[in-house]
Amino acid sequence: MHYTEYTKEEAASRLAEAEKKHESQIALGLSLDLSRGKPAPEQLDLSQPMLSLAEWQDDAGVDCRNYGMPFGLAEMRRFWASVTGIPAERIIVGGNSSLQMMYETLTRAMLFGVAGSKEPWCKIEKRKFLCPAPGYDRHFRVTETLGFELVTVPMTQDGPDMDAVEELVKDPTVRGMWCVPKYSNPTGVTYSDETVTRIAAMETAAPDFTVMWDNAYAVHDFVEDGDHLLDVFSVAEKYGHEDRFFYFSSTSKITFPGAGVAMMSMSERNLAKVKPLICAETIGPDKLNQLRHLAFLPNKEALTAQMKRHAEYIRPKFDTLLAILERELSDAGYAQWTRPSGGYFVSMEVPDGCAKRVWDLCREAGLTLTDAGASFPYGRDPKDSNLRLAPTFCSLADMTPAAEILTTSVKIAALERLLA
Amino acid sequence: MHYTEYTKEEAASRLAEAEKKHESQIALGLSLDLSRGKPAPEQLDLSQPMLSLAEWQDDAGVDCRNYGMPFGLAEMRRFWASVTGIPAERIIVGGNSSLQMMYETLTRAMLFGVAGSKEPWCKIEKRKFLCPAPGYDRHFRVTETLGFELVTVPMTQDGPDMDAVEELVKDPTVRGMWCVPKYSNPTGVTYSDETVTRIAAMETAAPDFTVMWDNAYAVHDFVEDGDHLLDVFSVAEKYGHEDRFFYFSSTSKITFPGAGVAMMSMSERNLAKVKPLICAETIGPDKLNQLRHLAFLPNKEALTAQMKRHAEYIRPKFDTLLAILERELSDAGYAQWTRPSGGYFVSMEVPDGCAKRVWDLCREAGLTLTDAGASFPYGRDPKDSNLRLAPTFCSLADMTPAAEILTTSVKIAALERLLA
Repeated sequence: MHYTEYTKEEAASRLAEAEKKHESQIALGLSLDLSRGKPAPEQLDLSQPMLSLAEWQDDAGVDCRNYGMPFGLAEMRRFWASVTGIPAERIIVGGNSSLQMMYETLTRAMLFGVAGSKEPWCKIEKRKFLCPAPGYDRHFRVTETLGFELVTVPMTQDGPDMDAVEELVKDPTVRGMWCVPKYSNPTGVTYSDETVTRIAAMETAAPDFTVMWDNAYAVHDFVEDGDHLLDVFSVAEKYGHEDRFFYFSSTSKITFPGAGVAMMSMSERNLAKVKPLICAETIGPDKLNQLRHLAFLPNKEALTAQMKRHAEYIRPKFDTLLAILERELSDAGYAQWTRPSGGYFVSMEVPDGCAKRVWDLCREAGLTLTDAGASFPYGRDPKDSNLRLAPTFCSLADMTPAAEILTTSVKIAALERLLA
Repeated sequence: MHYTEYTKEEAASRLAEAEKKHESQIALGLSLDLSRGKPAPEQLDLSQPMLSLAEWQDDAGVDCRNYGMPFGLAEMRRFWASVTGIPAERIIVGGNSSLQMMYETLTRAMLFGVAGSKEPWCKIEKRKFLCPAPGYDRHFRVTETLGFELVTVPMTQDGPDMDAVEELVKDPTVRGMWCVPKYSNPTGVTYSDETVTRIAAMETAAPDFTVMWDNAYAVHDFVEDGDHLLDVFSVAEKYGHEDRFFYFSSTSKITFPGAGVAMMSMSERNLAKVKPLICAETIGPDKLNQLRHLAFLPNKEALTAQMKRHAEYIRPKFDTLLAILERELSDAGYAQWTRPSGGYFVSMEVPDGCAKRVWDLCREAGLTLTDAGASFPYGRDPKDSNLRLAPTFCSLADMTPAAEILTTSVKIAALERLLA
């Protein structure tokens, strides 16, 4: 029976039961955390051998300790080509932060425009950016910082609601859109072929409409047959819209979040604009860290094996969390949640107006969740119903008490609201 | 006798002699390079042990492989405090490129202004930046890229010509100035106490006049008693102008040019503006590289010892070059040059209109110099008289033939011009 069909007495009795359980959870004095999309220490240990690889010359004998090679080592560009399917000469390898490459890309657009721009974006008084939500808070913050109005687009099972997007891009002040096309943060959704095609094909009022294509979870499957994502540049070329896409990825969740190797790619026309700017901006990325990565992950097989080892740690945590959500919340329909095949998050929908209350209840019992609303532009979830769950950093042993605190809290919030 | 006092016959005879020597130099088919301010491989070998230091936790036990700490490790900030004399809490540690931190600083000024700005700099139609010249080409290129008009200020033995600077800053469109205050690139000049004081004290028409204080050679003495530079923030505070200065340095020429650790510092008011922006821009710098540096250079003594080892390689190269310049060019006054106590460059003044010709003659004989004019805004030396010599990357064995090609070429160019 769905919980909303409970009699008042039954609801009150179940609420009392949940509150009692909550009290006992508080009494345990736990300190648990499902808030951060961070790999666990045991995942980081997988890459520990990389740290002792004191390589300093590339295949061509270049001394990588010295200045030079502003777009990264040829081998590292080929590594990324093998991961992304993009030609190596269209890949620029950066430092340790793909977020920084995204910020820099938008900063360049602000000051110099992109291919097709009539003027630098800073000249556009009212500029807007589409934010599929729930989405990644740090993306939204970048465009907010740069003075864009953030326009929420609902996420569906197939990616952003393309009917809404196609309508919104008729506004010429809408300059672009954020996308995490595979195992999207936080829903875990991979964009369908139709969604990718519609994003590539659509006509936009802004001649320089820009899609920030953050393929952060390109190889981050934790099931045998992971999701498949269309090659966006191939599709875009069919429609003559290859200038629209700036593609990003990194090894942050392959090796080390704080010391990985980030990359970006873009059309030939955008490369011609961006490369000279990069040469003015920096003496080049840390090539020694690239060599370390190449020695540790010399080919696609090594990468696949590494991602399998990650999956062995990650999957049981997702399985445990999802099993407890299923057992506790499914029958009575207290909440809905996603069941991704990869990535770092589960997205949960609790009854409207309950997300903040669930967050507070969890906190009381020692469980930290990502701030309610964090996955929405300006940190405001209009329905106050979404919670982002990040199972990877928590130990497997802690997952059961964490999930039980969470499910108890969801029940309390939902029943309180029902009885209010 | 000064060469300009030669009789025509004597000049012609000396020219013929130099040309003959030049021919014999060409015949050797050498390939030598004094063009790049890069450490030599043997200097890079000094830091090779650092690459095998697989540290991953800081003093407080923080896992530095993961995300976090956008302003750098506390220990690394203390390291830079000990080098610069600036309080650690006023230091922000970045990635491997101080040039990139400078670019980002000016980009933030363009989009958000600095403390004291009435508007972001991108709103200022005509904006100018002072470029003491000869100076560092990559500095000039940053401000040229960002749309500043580059205004040349002559360099003196004491730093920029402060009479000229004090006059120029009466123009409110002059927003700032580049400075390499110690062992300036390429003159090797260290700013005198008076120069530092005048830069800190002067009144400027722009309320947000910004000095880019690139102390790249802070500890790069190659004589026992290196130059002393005033602590610019202390002086600036006396005049209430601490917001004026953005301070930069890096370990690029202490450990590895391509994989060092850069830093910046600024006033409290600027920190309050910049820190939230950095938090939006990036997931933080590579902390593992910071740990490697800290393990390799745990204290000031280790740093001093490292710089002495560098000096042991660098000094003989400067000595050899300067001795040959002295022997070949001094008596007849063919040229003047600087005799620095540290840094990476010698700056040479050949007769007006001769620098490009010297460059070409050197090239014919297999010696590459930095492009004539490169040390001036827009790459244009108005007198065509300056050449930047970078002795570090060349081996000591190659220095003698390189210096002989150079001095022969200088004689030819000077005598050709005299006879023209």
